[in-house]
Amino acid sequence: MTTVYNFSAGPAVLPKDVLLQTQQELLDWHGSGMSVMEMSHRGPEFTQIIQEAEADLRDLMAIPAHYKVLFLQGGATTQFSAIPLNLIGRTGKADYVNTGHWSKGAIAEARRYGDIHVAASGEDRQFTYIPDLTRWQVRPDAAYLHYTPNETIGGVEFQSVPTVGDIPLVADMSSNILSRPVDVSRFGLIYAGAQKNIGPSGLVIVIVREDLLGHALPLTPKLMNYQLVADNDSMLNTPATFAVYVAGLIFKWLKAKGGVAAMEQINIAKADKIYAAIDGSQGFYRNPIDIACRSRMNIPFVLHDDALNAAFLKEAADHRLLQLKGHKSVGGMRASIYNAMPMDGVDALVSFMQDFAGRHT
Amino acid sequence: MTTVYNFSAGPAVLPKDVLLQTQQELLDWHGSGMSVMEMSHRGPEFTQIIQEAEADLRDLMAIPAHYKVLFLQGGATTQFSAIPLNLIGRTGKADYVNTGHWSKGAIAEARRYGDIHVAASGEDRQFTYIPDLTRWQVRPDAAYLHYTPNETIGGVEFQSVPTVGDIPLVADMSSNILSRPVDVSRFGLIYAGAQKNIGPSGLVIVIVREDLLGHALPLTPKLMNYQLVADNDSMLNTPATFAVYVAGLIFKWLKAKGGVAAMEQINIAKADKIYAAIDGSQGFYRNPIDIACRSRMNIPFVLHDDALNAAFLKEAADHRLLQLKGHKSVGGMRASIYNAMPMDGVDALVSFMQDFAGRHT
Repeated sequence: MTTVYNFSAGPAVLPKDVLLQTQQELLDWHGSGMSVMEMSHRGPEFTQIIQEAEADLRDLMAIPAHYKVLFLQGGATTQFSAIPLNLIGRTGKADYVNTGHWSKGAIAEARRYGDIHVAASGEDRQFTYIPDLTRWQVRPDAAYLHYTPNETIGGVEFQSVPTVGDIPLVADMSSNILSRPVDVSRFGLIYAGAQKNIGPSGLVIVIVREDLLGHALPLTPKLMNYQLVADNDSMLNTPATFAVYVAGLIFKWLKAKGGVAAMEQINIAKADKIYAAIDGSQGFYRNPIDIACRSRMNIPFVLHDDALNAAFLKEAADHRLLQLKGHKSVGGMRASIYNAMPMDGVDALVSFMQDFAGRHT
Repeated sequence: MTTVYNFSAGPAVLPKDVLLQTQQELLDWHGSGMSVMEMSHRGPEFTQIIQEAEADLRDLMAIPAHYKVLFLQGGATTQFSAIPLNLIGRTGKADYVNTGHWSKGAIAEARRYGDIHVAASGEDRQFTYIPDLTRWQVRPDAAYLHYTPNETIGGVEFQSVPTVGDIPLVADMSSNILSRPVDVSRFGLIYAGAQKNIGPSGLVIVIVREDLLGHALPLTPKLMNYQLVADNDSMLNTPATFAVYVAGLIFKWLKAKGGVAAMEQINIAKADKIYAAIDGSQGFYRNPIDIACRSRMNIPFVLHDDALNAAFLKEAADHRLLQLKGHKSVGGMRASIYNAMPMDGVDALVSFMQDFAGRHT
């Protein structure tokens, strides 16, 4: 088969070992004679799969016992609705930090369910920075404070967890979960669509502190009600069983690699190589983000001349470097380098970038 | 590998040919070098996959052009909320027919969003029959009439589409879609969780007449708003890409088998064999449903002595006949025989049932 390096922002590259195991087990999981796709979600086989997935995720992230782990559907965007529906009821107010495209989406949806205040925004400088924490204006009666630790499109990433007192912190970790250690106890709720660092699309994981449950607004759709889902161990209805299975394999792969601390070191090394290629290109490539908040996961960059974009993408594809086109709102290129992107892929990209710049300067 | 026959009610058996193709393409779809799980949902590869899936489904069901086909997440149970949220706004009222477990679930959730009236119910006889259409009390100002063409747990199936005048008919076809021809133009909306006759869990399909869109209640979560999803060709956010791909393969498999008309003949023959084994068992096995509305997809049956249940299930498993245990609300056994259950599996079950009865009479 063809070897390619796939820099898609999501759905994104998965570990080859996980895909090989999935392929091997596809028609007959552990001698059951059944594909995971064919198993009753209430049978002993799938029960084992989902329980192991949860245990491995708890292990990887050191999730405290008073947090529930929910396996849901509908992507992070569905959580843009579910979060205010479940959490805003306590005070009717919630604060949001606006660091780019995905923050804005979360804010727009939340406004439909209560009094939303933007505590800080990077929009004045086209989301190329993260406003200093000292300037955040968080209302003391906000039911929660929402932020986006990594902006997949803009390429802005928080390098530490903001300190906001007692207000429950809610984080959309879709594009950097499991890429570095985080102290889960600092959060009220963490959520992440699976299709970047967890597994296939169609699965979204919510990690929520138990005491925040039980305040859902009256019209909350049943399957968006975290309390009901938690009371049923994510089996209020049929979960996305195959996606849970693949996610579970990825959790085991991560553990075998040394967990998120080991993964962080690799991710730092991978990102450093690409930023060095950009910064060392004498202006041929440019990343507009403040150095202190550059993303390790999604690296947008523009070429000094937009007229070269088409040639860059075509030649990259000829070198089997795929899905490098930047989001239309930013332009240029974007290299998404999640956990499953091997160092070889980064090296191949850097080598190509240098070669391309040399030929087109 | 082990050959088994899997009678799970869902997630359920998938066609072996489809699983083999999925396995073969798992790491490299059509020479792309990528698994379908790794592809951007906005790239040319997945765009082709989802467009072909929709075209093939439209072809199989002869879906008229003024109906939208939506690929959603969250299972049919999420649609229990989404349907009133989207459709009840026109008059604030909706009518439901109660034929069992899944009808009841849909009714309970709908009551949270408007004035719900039960137009007919089979509860007086433990849902063993379908109330005669002449006795249905449908309100003329109902925004829609909801019914469940096949009750997966009870094993009751409508053999024709009820005539209800101009009121849009909404049908939960989760467990019998694509098992027989239906005239889509008779419906306002059809929905179906994938994990029975369509593909893996995590995908739900909605087929909706365009003129019913645009009346969503103000608090409808963005991703539950059919109009917004339709306007974005099911790409309002990342769809369950792998599930859509497998569903697409199943649609092609169905077309190769001669489509739903051919499938109906096979389904009739399969169901007839099992009902004949039950009815011919001199009371050893019993199915309580009125003959006129017995399901072709889900056949619940009890043994004359519940004390034999454990032995039946154990011996069945020894014969590689799996997941035959009935739902706890009904007891006994249930054989779910969707499109992908081969005739060989039905023959093996019938043979085992006869043998078991012979040895335990």
